[in-house]
Amino acid sequence: MDSGRLEAFSDGVLAIIITIMVLEMEAPDETTLEALIPVAPIFISYLISFIYVGTYWNNHHHLFQITEQINGKVLWANLHLLFWLSLIPFATSWVGENHVESLPVAAYGFVLLMSAIAFYILLKMIVRSHDEDFSLRKIDESSKKGILSLAIYVLGIVLSFTHPWLGILCYVIVLILWFIPSKKIENTLKKN
Amino acid sequence: MDSGRLEAFSDGVLAIIITIMVLEMEAPDETTLEALIPVAPIFISYLISFIYVGTYWNNHHHLFQITEQINGKVLWANLHLLFWLSLIPFATSWVGENHVESLPVAAYGFVLLMSAIAFYILLKMIVRSHDEDFSLRKIDESSKKGILSLAIYVLGIVLSFTHPWLGILCYVIVLILWFIPSKKIENTLKKN
Amino acid sequence: MDSGRLEAFSDGVLAIIITIMVLEMEAPDETTLEALIPVAPIFISYLISFIYVGTYWNNHHHLFQITEQINGKVLWANLHLLFWLSLIPFATSWVGENHVESLPVAAYGFVLLMSAIAFYILLKMIVRSHDEDFSLRKIDESSKKGILSLAIYVLGIVLSFTHPWLGILCYVIVLILWFIPSKKIENTLKKN
Amino acid sequence: MDSGRLEAFSDGVLAIIITIMVLEMEAPDETTLEALIPVAPIFISYLISFIYVGTYWNNHHHLFQITEQINGKVLWANLHLLFWLSLIPFATSWVGENHVESLPVAAYGFVLLMSAIAFYILLKMIVRSHDEDFSLRKIDESSKKGILSLAIYVLGIVLSFTHPWLGILCYVIVLILWFIPSKKIENTLKKN
Repeated sequence: MDSGRLEAFSDGVLAIIITIMVLEMEAPDETTLEALIPVAPIFISYLISFIYVGTYWNNHHHLFQITEQINGKVLWANLHLLFWLSLIPFATSWVGENHVESLPVAAYGFVLLMSAIAFYILLKMIVRSHDEDFSLRKIDESSKKGILSLAIYVLGIVLSFTHPWLGILCYVIVLILWFIPSKKIENTLKKN
Repeated sequence: MDSGRLEAFSDGVLAIIITIMVLEMEAPDETTLEALIPVAPIFISYLISFIYVGTYWNNHHHLFQITEQINGKVLWANLHLLFWLSLIPFATSWVGENHVESLPVAAYGFVLLMSAIAFYILLKMIVRSHDEDFSLRKIDESSKKGILSLAIYVLGIVLSFTHPWLGILCYVIVLILWFIPSKKIENTLKKN
Repeated sequence: MDSGRLEAFSDGVLAIIITIMVLEMEAPDETTLEALIPVAPIFISYLISFIYVGTYWNNHHHLFQITEQINGKVLWANLHLLFWLSLIPFATSWVGENHVESLPVAAYGFVLLMSAIAFYILLKMIVRSHDEDFSLRKIDESSKKGILSLAIYVLGIVLSFTHPWLGILCYVIVLILWFIPSKKIENTLKKN
Repeated sequence: MDSGRLEAFSDGVLAIIITIMVLEMEAPDETTLEALIPVAPIFISYLISFIYVGTYWNNHHHLFQITEQINGKVLWANLHLLFWLSLIPFATSWVGENHVESLPVAAYGFVLLMSAIAFYILLKMIVRSHDEDFSLRKIDESSKKGILSLAIYVLGIVLSFTHPWLGILCYVIVLILWFIPSKKIENTLKKN
């Protein structure tokens, strides 16, 4: 099976997720600078989530650039990833509207953690559906960035109960780790 | 006529349907675990509907993988399917916001029943637009899963008036039946 | 220029228009059959608008199936059409929420009239960007259905001020006229 | 890397941005002409924003028509552009709901200014990822329209604090400048 339609559907869902979050930002009733202040934390959480979804889109794009074939399990692993990503707007607005309190920040971290796990499962399913020589297999085996990310997410969730801003900091650190898509994939693409 | 644009349009509509349902889940005003409790039934109904729409997308994807040509009737049969599927968010939020009461659950079952009938009509229209040797024709003729599903839906709608949760159970049973796309289609694809 | 991306963008906008209208239908607070009654007119207006947008998508699909090349003017003529079509959800909910009163029905007819004119302009722009032998040119010249539609729309708008339901009837008549995409285009496609 | 998926994702986001703005226009409760008056400024701001996003889509389309290859930096430059464009609905409704007051008009201008800068960065990133002979390089170097636009935007933002309508006028002037996509790109496309 060809991955064209899976990519198109994922693009559609990711495009909606990224723009739904703008809907959360209601235009203030008044036209003073003060009226913009309550919008500010929503704006910041929107900005972080935008970069997060953008980073997932970038890595998803790289992943399927190198994928040669898909099967039914890959379709469901991809839908599973989209499910967790589609909860990001909900978590984002809960954090933003409550000015970064403990439980929303922990919930936000949980959604990010589950998204990361879902991405890893997707990667595994793609590797399994290819043979021994598949280039992604080597990348997958040598990757320690994934395990590190999961650890930082868990740390962030725990920290958010006492210091919500430290939780946010942890999520931003993982974001920076993944902001630049895997050089290994780009190099493999260049070789072919 | 080529089916490329029909698939792209369907992907767009299905992507929106699946993500619209997240919009139904408003972030709670408070930041306590108790504040999440009223969101829980909405979350569960969202989860079931997400898997339902995902399953339809998977089966739709398989169906058009094997389809060789389309005509005006197929276009309308597809729009008819999308119409019923687009009512799923409405039914989902009616069920979720009322904590699984009789009429919403029956209405939810009715939308699922009509979606299943619409999918069957689409299948018939595609088979009719192909000649005798078309591989889908044999799959269609030997399929008893479709009739079984309709019967379980009707049972679920009836049951929901006395035991709403049994209604939900019926819908979940049909979901499991269709969760894995037709092996027959995958085998036919492999043969070619 | 190739029309692939124009079609993809149009599909996206039309998919959103068709599903936005479902958002207008809020799940009723109560779970009785009576609670569904105020939703009924919104449902009917949603149904008509769904078929309208579906019909436009079908005809748009047929039109670009036969189009060989596009230019900047075609891009803007297409955006002009999408603009008027994007007002359909607004007009639909105004009609539905007010149980078919004069001004909303007239406004709905005005949006449909402008959409029809926009479709005609798009057709003209496509014909102009092709040479003398272009098959769509003959179809365009011999078409009286377009002028008839405009006349019925104007009649519907006028009638809606005294008998709103007669206005709706006029719009439904035009819908039936265009429900089946041009046989002439299908025949031309078959010849090639 | 091929630009197909970048274009598809951008089309999705732009399609949503353009149609989200319609959602801002709520159908009035009453059915009189007077009830439409408060909708009027929202409609006008929606119209201008629609043409703006349409113009960006047109120029984006032209830009990638001529682009031969993309890399990771182009992906992020494109997401950066989409971020600023996705703020247009927010700014549009703030202007429209407050009947063109100073701060909303300045904020609207700021979002347009940042979008223009983001488009310029995207152009630069594309030029950098190609070699010396790349046709876009010459267009980029000889373009004074970009700098002129930025100057008019800044002027519009400053003016909006004393005369909001003059600010709007400035934005409309830039819109007219870019309404017709670059002739230079079209000529280059024709030569190939």
